[in-house]
Amino acid sequence: MVTASICTIGDEILIGQIVDTNSSKISIALNSIGVKVNEMTSTSDNENEIVRTLERCLEKTDIVIVTGGLGPTKDDITKKTLGKLSGAKEFVKNQEQYEIIERLLTARGVEMSDLNIAQSYVPDSCKVILNECGTAPCMLFEFGAEKYGHNALLFSLPGVPFEAEAALPKVLKIIQEHYKMENIFHKTICTFGIPESTLAKTIEEWEDNLPDNLHLAYLPNPTLGVRLRLSIYGVDKEQGERELEEESRKLEAIIGDAIYGVGEDSLQAAIGRMLKSKGATISTAESCTGGSIASLLTSVPGASQYFYGGIISYDNSVKINTLGVKRETIEMFGAVSEECVKEMASGVKKLMGTDYSIATSGVAGPDGGTPVNPVGTVWIAISGPDFLLTKRLQFHASRKLNIERFTSNALNFMRVKLQNDLNCNR
Amino acid sequence: MVTASICTIGDEILIGQIVDTNSSKISIALNSIGVKVNEMTSTSDNENEIVRTLERCLEKTDIVIVTGGLGPTKDDITKKTLGKLSGAKEFVKNQEQYEIIERLLTARGVEMSDLNIAQSYVPDSCKVILNECGTAPCMLFEFGAEKYGHNALLFSLPGVPFEAEAALPKVLKIIQEHYKMENIFHKTICTFGIPESTLAKTIEEWEDNLPDNLHLAYLPNPTLGVRLRLSIYGVDKEQGERELEEESRKLEAIIGDAIYGVGEDSLQAAIGRMLKSKGATISTAESCTGGSIASLLTSVPGASQYFYGGIISYDNSVKINTLGVKRETIEMFGAVSEECVKEMASGVKKLMGTDYSIATSGVAGPDGGTPVNPVGTVWIAISGPDFLLTKRLQFHASRKLNIERFTSNALNFMRVKLQNDLNCNR
Repeated sequence: MVTASICTIGDEILIGQIVDTNSSKISIALNSIGVKVNEMTSTSDNENEIVRTLERCLEKTDIVIVTGGLGPTKDDITKKTLGKLSGAKEFVKNQEQYEIIERLLTARGVEMSDLNIAQSYVPDSCKVILNECGTAPCMLFEFGAEKYGHNALLFSLPGVPFEAEAALPKVLKIIQEHYKMENIFHKTICTFGIPESTLAKTIEEWEDNLPDNLHLAYLPNPTLGVRLRLSIYGVDKEQGERELEEESRKLEAIIGDAIYGVGEDSLQAAIGRMLKSKGATISTAESCTGGSIASLLTSVPGASQYFYGGIISYDNSVKINTLGVKRETIEMFGAVSEECVKEMASGVKKLMGTDYSIATSGVAGPDGGTPVNPVGTVWIAISGPDFLLTKRLQFHASRKLNIERFTSNALNFMRVKLQNDLNCNR
Repeated sequence: MVTASICTIGDEILIGQIVDTNSSKISIALNSIGVKVNEMTSTSDNENEIVRTLERCLEKTDIVIVTGGLGPTKDDITKKTLGKLSGAKEFVKNQEQYEIIERLLTARGVEMSDLNIAQSYVPDSCKVILNECGTAPCMLFEFGAEKYGHNALLFSLPGVPFEAEAALPKVLKIIQEHYKMENIFHKTICTFGIPESTLAKTIEEWEDNLPDNLHLAYLPNPTLGVRLRLSIYGVDKEQGERELEEESRKLEAIIGDAIYGVGEDSLQAAIGRMLKSKGATISTAESCTGGSIASLLTSVPGASQYFYGGIISYDNSVKINTLGVKRETIEMFGAVSEECVKEMASGVKKLMGTDYSIATSGVAGPDGGTPVNPVGTVWIAISGPDFLLTKRLQFHASRKLNIERFTSNALNFMRVKLQNDLNCNR
């Protein structure tokens, strides 16, 4: 199996100023083509440290991916250090990267400085992988077996996350060609609403009967639910896709309701797709979630096609005056009640003239809990052309996590209902 | 200087399934007492790998902090491996941790299994640091100079982020006592609205004149702004606090408007404090920010004291029917205009009967841009008892980042106005 190490360079990671998100993105990408990551390391902007770390990683693994330390200022020494490590004789100008730098700076209205020009120079021992989104070129260094006991590839990528991410497809292609790697195809199935351990039990029999060349990984996430990644090895594209399709169909027969999409999907995107396919619209009435549901719904590009708007009715006066919740309802049942959340959902749907609506009222904490409605309680209502459904849930987390869970569960409640309705009409 | 390495153990980090946030939290904590972190490493749940990594780190640094691999299942092998590494003769039960495990499980309504009982057993070569929030005890191993050339401390903490974080104060205390460390005190000053490079220029003279035992670090963050961390070394508490106070006063005289708080503050918390001190209330009318402003305002505990509610007027019909924006305004100037955003701010303030309001209308992208209002344009209005102010900003980022910047800049606009008004009335 081809192995890799990932090294990040930069004091800002070591002092905890920024969290390293590059390594996990790179690791996911490497895993997706069947490369195993054996180590992740962060080192400071210090030449000896960098050399020691890189030599250790080059000895240990086939591939080393380095991010960071490519900025124009003098504390960024990765390029110089890699030049030495690889025995470069001189630094040469890369004309194509030079032109990219010029274009980027012109677009920003900045004049090219000596430091920027210096960024287009690279050690003559490397191959340049153009960085289309930034000024620092990506570099590939190849080491023969005489140096580290085996052939090794070292990639140097920028530390800026979106620049590093943009370079990954090119890096993967080079690795796949270099190592003539076995085919591997993936399909990620997104589920929500079944806890990981229950899900594992529910699909145990299906999992046990998977073909030997098909692997399953659980990727749990508090807001995205549990995603199931199926990987198939050593087959051609057509067969791979057919087998992945077949297994996902079997899975759907077992946990259909819980599946909301594939790949990088989200509950809000799934809701958006279904609303668009119906030509329907939606609105929100939020108390305890304070705008989080609307904020997620509108995070999807094109949400204005189906999301009309929402009311955040934090104060009871807004529930009464704007949403039209009856004063007696709140006096009799309280704001955190099935009755109130029903009137909120109906109220906003009528007010904004939408086909569907979602409403929440609960206690996020840390204060405000009562014996009937302790911190972590939420009432959710969803409403549509011919239904008004409610649900009460109880969580036990911090204010922040409670709000996140109220929000994702409210979205999922609507998602399941829309999905079931669509399936019935098929 | 006392040095440290941080090692995370677990395949879930190496395959990119979770991002390691523990290391940066631990590093910030270590830095805060003057310990320098030289390396961060992630290794898989493999005994040889763990031993190799830990021995290397123990040779290199005074302190090694290990997180993860302490779960009850058999793939978690950190405790066993540490036992071997430290020459433990047997595993002994820690009664206090046992009682904590029992209490935690009872609270969750779970019966104690053999695996849970096993968690209360630790190598006889360690000192236990009780884990009050979880079932896995934290452990301290001390190594004499004969083994790694210098005295070394190895701490083993759980991988669960809030459990690791909860253990940090105890870890810091042990380190400070063990190494008789120099006093160090910090003050973090939160600023927003001045880009890092401009800020550095603006405060250059002040920075150059700081006493030698006073250090400054820039901590830039897209939503929190640039935080300035002042650290003072080698003085007693009283003098330390006095000097930090003095320097922050000087800083305030230079960039007063940009400073919104200290420590772990946020723009929304600063707004909340000022509104509470006035006994005033606020509401929001959001178009392009889709509920993000309300969501941040309500993320602050106790926000219901001043936040009445908000309207998310994504569709123009909501702007007109609910907020009372004039149809002619939208027809003549468009929804993304100074006129519209003014009427939105006035409308929601009147509708909800609040003293203040914030409104936004813009183009988050990726589609919907025009020559007049390209993607990344936002109009912001803030309104109060005797003012109605507007601002137009232009960003060039993705939908997600544009929304984040619209949101933090809208909050900052209101924060600066409230702060200036309070200062004038002093």
